[in-house]
Amino acid sequence: MALDDASPLYLQIAQQLAQLIRNGTLARGERLPSVREMARQHGVAQTTVVQAYHWLEDARLVAARPRSGFFVAARLVHLPEPTTPRPLRRPREVSVDWLGQRILGRDQPADIVSFSSGTPGPELFNPDRVRRAVVRAAQRHRNLLCTYPSSSGHEDARRALARYALGLGCTLDPANIVITGGCMDSISLCLRAVTQPGDVVALESPTHFSFLEVLQGLHLKALEILTHPRTGLSLDALQLALETQPVKAVMLVPTLSNPLGSCMPQAERKRLAQMAARHGMAVIEDAIYNDLVEVEEMRRTVKSYDTTGHVMLCDSFSKTLAPGLRLGWLEAGRWADRLRAIKDLQAGGQSAVLELALADLITQAGHAAAMRQLRGAVAARIDEVRQVIATHFPPGTRVSDPPGGLLLWVELPRALDSVQLHDACLAERILVAPGPVFSASGRFRNCLRIGVGGDWTPAHLDALKTVGRLASQMLRLTQQAA
Amino acid sequence: MALDDASPLYLQIAQQLAQLIRNGTLARGERLPSVREMARQHGVAQTTVVQAYHWLEDARLVAARPRSGFFVAARLVHLPEPTTPRPLRRPREVSVDWLGQRILGRDQPADIVSFSSGTPGPELFNPDRVRRAVVRAAQRHRNLLCTYPSSSGHEDARRALARYALGLGCTLDPANIVITGGCMDSISLCLRAVTQPGDVVALESPTHFSFLEVLQGLHLKALEILTHPRTGLSLDALQLALETQPVKAVMLVPTLSNPLGSCMPQAERKRLAQMAARHGMAVIEDAIYNDLVEVEEMRRTVKSYDTTGHVMLCDSFSKTLAPGLRLGWLEAGRWADRLRAIKDLQAGGQSAVLELALADLITQAGHAAAMRQLRGAVAARIDEVRQVIATHFPPGTRVSDPPGGLLLWVELPRALDSVQLHDACLAERILVAPGPVFSASGRFRNCLRIGVGGDWTPAHLDALKTVGRLASQMLRLTQQAA
Repeated sequence: MALDDASPLYLQIAQQLAQLIRNGTLARGERLPSVREMARQHGVAQTTVVQAYHWLEDARLVAARPRSGFFVAARLVHLPEPTTPRPLRRPREVSVDWLGQRILGRDQPADIVSFSSGTPGPELFNPDRVRRAVVRAAQRHRNLLCTYPSSSGHEDARRALARYALGLGCTLDPANIVITGGCMDSISLCLRAVTQPGDVVALESPTHFSFLEVLQGLHLKALEILTHPRTGLSLDALQLALETQPVKAVMLVPTLSNPLGSCMPQAERKRLAQMAARHGMAVIEDAIYNDLVEVEEMRRTVKSYDTTGHVMLCDSFSKTLAPGLRLGWLEAGRWADRLRAIKDLQAGGQSAVLELALADLITQAGHAAAMRQLRGAVAARIDEVRQVIATHFPPGTRVSDPPGGLLLWVELPRALDSVQLHDACLAERILVAPGPVFSASGRFRNCLRIGVGGDWTPAHLDALKTVGRLASQMLRLTQQAA
Repeated sequence: MALDDASPLYLQIAQQLAQLIRNGTLARGERLPSVREMARQHGVAQTTVVQAYHWLEDARLVAARPRSGFFVAARLVHLPEPTTPRPLRRPREVSVDWLGQRILGRDQPADIVSFSSGTPGPELFNPDRVRRAVVRAAQRHRNLLCTYPSSSGHEDARRALARYALGLGCTLDPANIVITGGCMDSISLCLRAVTQPGDVVALESPTHFSFLEVLQGLHLKALEILTHPRTGLSLDALQLALETQPVKAVMLVPTLSNPLGSCMPQAERKRLAQMAARHGMAVIEDAIYNDLVEVEEMRRTVKSYDTTGHVMLCDSFSKTLAPGLRLGWLEAGRWADRLRAIKDLQAGGQSAVLELALADLITQAGHAAAMRQLRGAVAARIDEVRQVIATHFPPGTRVSDPPGGLLLWVELPRALDSVQLHDACLAERILVAPGPVFSASGRFRNCLRIGVGGDWTPAHLDALKTVGRLASQMLRLTQQAA
């Protein structure tokens, strides 16, 4: 293996091994050379090899077995990746009321088996650790319960967030950080700081359902941009749109996008930050899944390349720590004053006691290890689900292979209608999110999003087999009718 | 008490009682002996005592509460009440950015003596009681910290609020109650449920500064309605407006309005509910001060007269229990579904643990007593401030005499400019809120709002004397110039 000089040594070694695994030279179950052996072969320090192996471990390409070494653990399932056809090139008013109520199953009955959640259930978190932090904060800062909090958030909590943001590649001034009521609250505030009703906002296609809802609520128009299932929003398509449309902002999830699970390459992130500056456009970056990505370098945000303040970073810990704290945060770049004024006047601050509990939690020594454990648990679940899809869904099904997160995007044969499939599943008390929910123009009619969050039970894999069976039946009927 | 013979018997009794009230022997809020008891003590007819009590009532030294008797309501100071001229009869776009930043002193330095707060400081609350409730809720419901909460609020908390609402005269279905991030959050949600950008909303004049801000944020137009300093929003003026303007909603604080401290008579509340039904208009009622009113019957809300679902009730416990919990609630009447959809998609729920802590607090046996104590402490402070205004402000000053709450409305001689006075005070590190802040059209140029909340210190009364001195100086200069 010849090494080049462009990236850190460990990453070069890791990526070369990754290639050997992906092309099958190193087969699943095979043992990697020992650290000592590998170090000797490449003439590098053993710590460098250890770093490379940990990178491969995070990418789920290898698994460590105690006292035995590292083994190739490539994904069992090789289904083709979904396709994402080019959207129409004009902005649309958003109207998604019926979808949210009828299809995403809000107020769903308790006995339904739901695949609608992209948030880990409490069994994957550490409720005791969170409880202790809340109790401690309440006891230390009881007076904060009886005063109005700062609208931007408690200073100590903002400082903790600035330290945390270093892990996202960002050097942020705590004074510019604003704590919010969650990531969607952050996004809504950012949109309000940079748009007026009627303005055009560009987004991924497919996109996060809640993004469409928030656009509708703010009377904004959606412009869907071609999005690659693995590398995310196409900047060439965005560039084309910017040349013909008055786009005020682009909102996206560069790391583990929802629903595709795509990750934008770092070079593209840099290019996006530059495009935003050139066009005077805001980038609203949702980083909520960044701690769940298996490839460490993908944690780095678009914001980290922002030299002009055109990138607005939105985040929360609801997917990784404690959704019940109801806290998010943001950094609004050049729109900081405007955003603070909006927050000030409409929502005010959050509970400072909960903010300080959060600050405590994210600065504890064990946090990184907890994240690693969470990623592993979620990955195992995703692997199981992909296995069931491979064996129980109709031939021709395609499925995403995201490097982390709790969401899979399933593309069924073109003849299938996922809204009908949703209805058939609901009759069996199973909830899946059909493709059109993730588009302002009702696209992705033959797609599904499968989330492995929420209350995950042994019943879920069986229910998924039922979804596959219903899809196959429906497909046969359609083909007979044709 | 010995009685002499110089004046009518009832007057002798009344004047002796007046003296006991003025020298503090009978404290504000204390109940007078019953008519029967008093008659027996003095060996006079009950009608004589009734006459005496009515004399004291006319002098505003006592107040009658139905079926409870007479209570000491002494105001030491008898200044004339402020005037509230008729506003223009057309809706206006709202633009109050500069006022909030510059004049209400957000981000004010720590060493300023501020009269800008209408919220009790922590010394008037019971931080230990609140802390205990939070710790208990966190320990009992730790799993709630690690799941997304219901967007409408935890069921147990909504039930506790429905019980609490009985005290406001309302029989509410817990299923229709929505818990929010505070009273202003409630109001903003209600406005969004019943308006579109550009719509006209009627409000009191002067009105709560934050109401203007929220209208601006939602791109709504303000229509200022004549408001009486004692009886609140004029329904005749509102009726006139409804006949010529497309008013979508009227937002008001019927009990202890901000800044006037006016209370709408109960008959008018009923009439307002009927008007709303007749015109298909929403009434957005802010009940945040209802627990602070000294006259029990004024706690009863407009909502209690609502038979058609046109009244939207907004409330929180930030003024009475714990602003740091950041919780409010609402009942949206006929717009319940629409409002829930809006909340669902943009903000989601609040921390269920804090909601359950609140439910615990408001259902504790001691809550009513805590309210009584809070009202007494606040009243004493208001009395002191009125005393200083009477003795240190220029002749011709008028001041409100609200039956509770933490706000006074001061009308200075017409030649005085309160924005200039605000600037002069700020130079002495004193913050007062000038009248124009409370109007969409910059009215009330010679008025001030004095709040006795926040961090109240012995320095405050001295600072207020300085405000009076500066006002007198400014007035002399103006008169010399004329």
